[in-house]
Amino acid sequence: MFEASEVGHEITKAHYEKALPKLREELLDAQYALSKNGKFPVIVVIGGVDGAGKGETVNVLNEWMDPRHIHTVAFAPPSDEEVQRPRMWRYFLSLPPRGSIGILFGSWYTDPMVDRVAGRTRRAELDASIQEINRFEQMLTDEGALVLKFWFHLSKKDQKKRLLEIDRDKKRTWRITKADWKQFEKYDEYYAVAEHTLRLTSTGAAPWIIVEGKQPRYRYLTVGKTLLSAMRKRLAEKPARKEASSRAAPIVRPIDHRDLLSELDLSTTLSPKLYGDQLERWQGRLNRLARDQRFQHLSVTIAFEGMDAAGKGSTIRRLTSALDARQYHVIPVAAPTDEERAQPYLWRFWRHLPRKGRLTIYDRSWYGRVLVERVEGFCSEVDWMRAYNEINDFEEQLTRGRTVLCKFWMQISKDQQLRRFQERETTRFKHFKITDEDWRNRKKWNHYQAAAADMIERTSTEIAPWTLVAAEDKKFARIKVLKTLVKRIEEALDQPLG
Amino acid sequence: MFEASEVGHEITKAHYEKALPKLREELLDAQYALSKNGKFPVIVVIGGVDGAGKGETVNVLNEWMDPRHIHTVAFAPPSDEEVQRPRMWRYFLSLPPRGSIGILFGSWYTDPMVDRVAGRTRRAELDASIQEINRFEQMLTDEGALVLKFWFHLSKKDQKKRLLEIDRDKKRTWRITKADWKQFEKYDEYYAVAEHTLRLTSTGAAPWIIVEGKQPRYRYLTVGKTLLSAMRKRLAEKPARKEASSRAAPIVRPIDHRDLLSELDLSTTLSPKLYGDQLERWQGRLNRLARDQRFQHLSVTIAFEGMDAAGKGSTIRRLTSALDARQYHVIPVAAPTDEERAQPYLWRFWRHLPRKGRLTIYDRSWYGRVLVERVEGFCSEVDWMRAYNEINDFEEQLTRGRTVLCKFWMQISKDQQLRRFQERETTRFKHFKITDEDWRNRKKWNHYQAAAADMIERTSTEIAPWTLVAAEDKKFARIKVLKTLVKRIEEALDQPLG
Repeated sequence: MFEASEVGHEITKAHYEKALPKLREELLDAQYALSKNGKFPVIVVIGGVDGAGKGETVNVLNEWMDPRHIHTVAFAPPSDEEVQRPRMWRYFLSLPPRGSIGILFGSWYTDPMVDRVAGRTRRAELDASIQEINRFEQMLTDEGALVLKFWFHLSKKDQKKRLLEIDRDKKRTWRITKADWKQFEKYDEYYAVAEHTLRLTSTGAAPWIIVEGKQPRYRYLTVGKTLLSAMRKRLAEKPARKEASSRAAPIVRPIDHRDLLSELDLSTTLSPKLYGDQLERWQGRLNRLARDQRFQHLSVTIAFEGMDAAGKGSTIRRLTSALDARQYHVIPVAAPTDEERAQPYLWRFWRHLPRKGRLTIYDRSWYGRVLVERVEGFCSEVDWMRAYNEINDFEEQLTRGRTVLCKFWMQISKDQQLRRFQERETTRFKHFKITDEDWRNRKKWNHYQAAAADMIERTSTEIAPWTLVAAEDKKFARIKVLKTLVKRIEEALDQPLG
Repeated sequence: MFEASEVGHEITKAHYEKALPKLREELLDAQYALSKNGKFPVIVVIGGVDGAGKGETVNVLNEWMDPRHIHTVAFAPPSDEEVQRPRMWRYFLSLPPRGSIGILFGSWYTDPMVDRVAGRTRRAELDASIQEINRFEQMLTDEGALVLKFWFHLSKKDQKKRLLEIDRDKKRTWRITKADWKQFEKYDEYYAVAEHTLRLTSTGAAPWIIVEGKQPRYRYLTVGKTLLSAMRKRLAEKPARKEASSRAAPIVRPIDHRDLLSELDLSTTLSPKLYGDQLERWQGRLNRLARDQRFQHLSVTIAFEGMDAAGKGSTIRRLTSALDARQYHVIPVAAPTDEERAQPYLWRFWRHLPRKGRLTIYDRSWYGRVLVERVEGFCSEVDWMRAYNEINDFEEQLTRGRTVLCKFWMQISKDQQLRRFQERETTRFKHFKITDEDWRNRKKWNHYQAAAADMIERTSTEIAPWTLVAAEDKKFARIKVLKTLVKRIEEALDQPLG
């Protein structure tokens, strides 16, 4: 794999100086066209061996193009805030917005490879990371990103030569540290791990481009030209005509119209007296759990979904009133801001993930894509169809480590919704809860129910099961939610710390 | 001060139940009017003694209004990321956007008061915090925020009664912790510190509203009605006609037209040979400093300002190429995003402040308000006039603790600018650096120079001095910047840790 990049590629100075002005001009033109187009980001991943000119190449790209539209991010060891969230959190939040170029120096590849070289992980763990990376990059390219991954290579001989060269030069000797030499000793192990990783992550949509790092002129020109042609090609493409979104689910629905939702027993109720007792009981238990020492090692994410007027808001208030306000955050999912719109769909949910010892409660969630966006045709069928997998990946990452993820679907009957709508209309201060949109959505009741049933079927996984809540009786529903949450947290706390 | 809130205020149940529906209705109307208006945020600060119903009031407000337009934030002890930044950082970033209500539970008042009660700080330190808070709230109200500060009070007898009451109730006993009782022992100290603090921070624009916390009905209705009438009053106000912005500086200019900038010697140069040597020398020194163990306790903020084509970008690249890319972040100041536009002016700069061990380099900065915005009339005279003080406050907070703040003004002559503009026009790949706007700005050269001179005069403080850089010769300028930065960091590193 790397042999082709050890042949000693060279570009003459004359050639370089002749090609450069035109290349810079064209790169700038492409960069402005990208900015004007504004439809996709360009994600440039920079990896490779030390001394092969990674850093210099990043600098050169910033010099050649307009640095104000380049997001250069170099990843240091994670901060405490970062360590306490899923591994991909900081990478996700560092993605460049559409219309701009992100240069990622160090990336989601660094830790899995370095950990493997250092023997901290086994081959199987590396391979699991590789699979995760492939799904992540698949999501990026599905979202429209142009992903270019450059690997800067040097033969062992050349790397040694280069390190010595810099070390001997008095003026530049500060550029080489002990860590660099230590790293060099692991050249062979690193070579093997890199070859394995690159081979398995060189996908059609996001292939690796291996660049011989020996001669600066050669590597700069290679990267510049590759970047230019990829951007040009992409900018010239007609936007892929996504299939017209269709209301008809492409998923085969049970022909007897029975599903998990229609079969849910909605007749369960709770008397006011029993409710009062149970409420204090489960709220007290939740409160004690949240103050448990062990809770500081746990994070909790809760998603609420359900038809309008199913009682999401009032249930959430029963949870939060049992908690210390400093521990939780309620995120009502609203129209995305422009910073959110310029990012992949899941970005706006990633940004609010809780750190350890905290809870985030989403009032409506990332499932919007397969519910309202699907039913109302706000996104194409291709987009919501792929969302099931993306969501499962997201939740898998979320639940790794000590995390509890609870997903509640609050189910009511169509009649009950009507009664609550009418009550909202007549009670003046509940008026704000009812809009024309709610009535419009109600007309599509069956479509929403079908979408919800599909959603539950496809995203109720062992690690992140859906809890279906019969919410016809609000009191019953609230206790069910509280109890479920308490039990899930207790289970997690009982797991040994490891 | 608190006596008036120990009289045992009460509201009958009948009165309460009669008043409530109308109040909720009107609060909701006001909330929607606020959202539609979108011009200012409502910041509700909640403070007071334990057991006086702070938390319950927060819950009630969320129940009465549409919680989707309320940003409830409760502040826990700061995280590691927060500890490593100026004290106000997390408060600043938690402000509600314009058009919405922020309920801050715990606030910038908590730590100064608690620290004083615990004897961790002296009276003078509390007073310094109070002054800082007053300036901060002044900025908020100047930016248009409606600030309401509620203090929930209980007499010592009532607090004890209330704590016992809850403690004895088996169902609610979990609501009282040992910490609450410990806090109660300090009632008198707390009373004194609170009285002092409230008296000094009850300003005309942001007064404290003291609410007796004994009876839930009384406190809910008081808070609800106060919030409603304040919102209504504010919404009914005609937007204060800010004075028409004027190009003529209201600041007296030296009548001989000589100032720090006109007197700067621009003839200094550096030969290519000397430049090469010095560059490696100072870059090496900077690199070593940044890898110094002690640098992990330091954060560095650098702001670059100067006329177009003064060489800011190329100088920044000379700094960054000496640094590990993981340590620094370059922020090119561009048009604000909608999330930024919905916040006070300085918010967009606060958000990028570096943690310890890191550097943030602003390519143009918070001085935009008193430079381009002043000259071009993008903000009113009132706004840029108050910006000088706000900026000084900001920088004072920034430089507290182990922080280096360097501000560079790169000065060139009008002729030099013309030569560089022309070079940019003829060199195709430098073309992007020159726009029609640059030529337009050039016509206002004298206005910009006057604004810069005023800025330097008013914001060059002992803790945050401006460095004027003669940038006629780029090489000389780069070395001057590098050298200044190195010396400032060395000074800071030599200060004993404490």
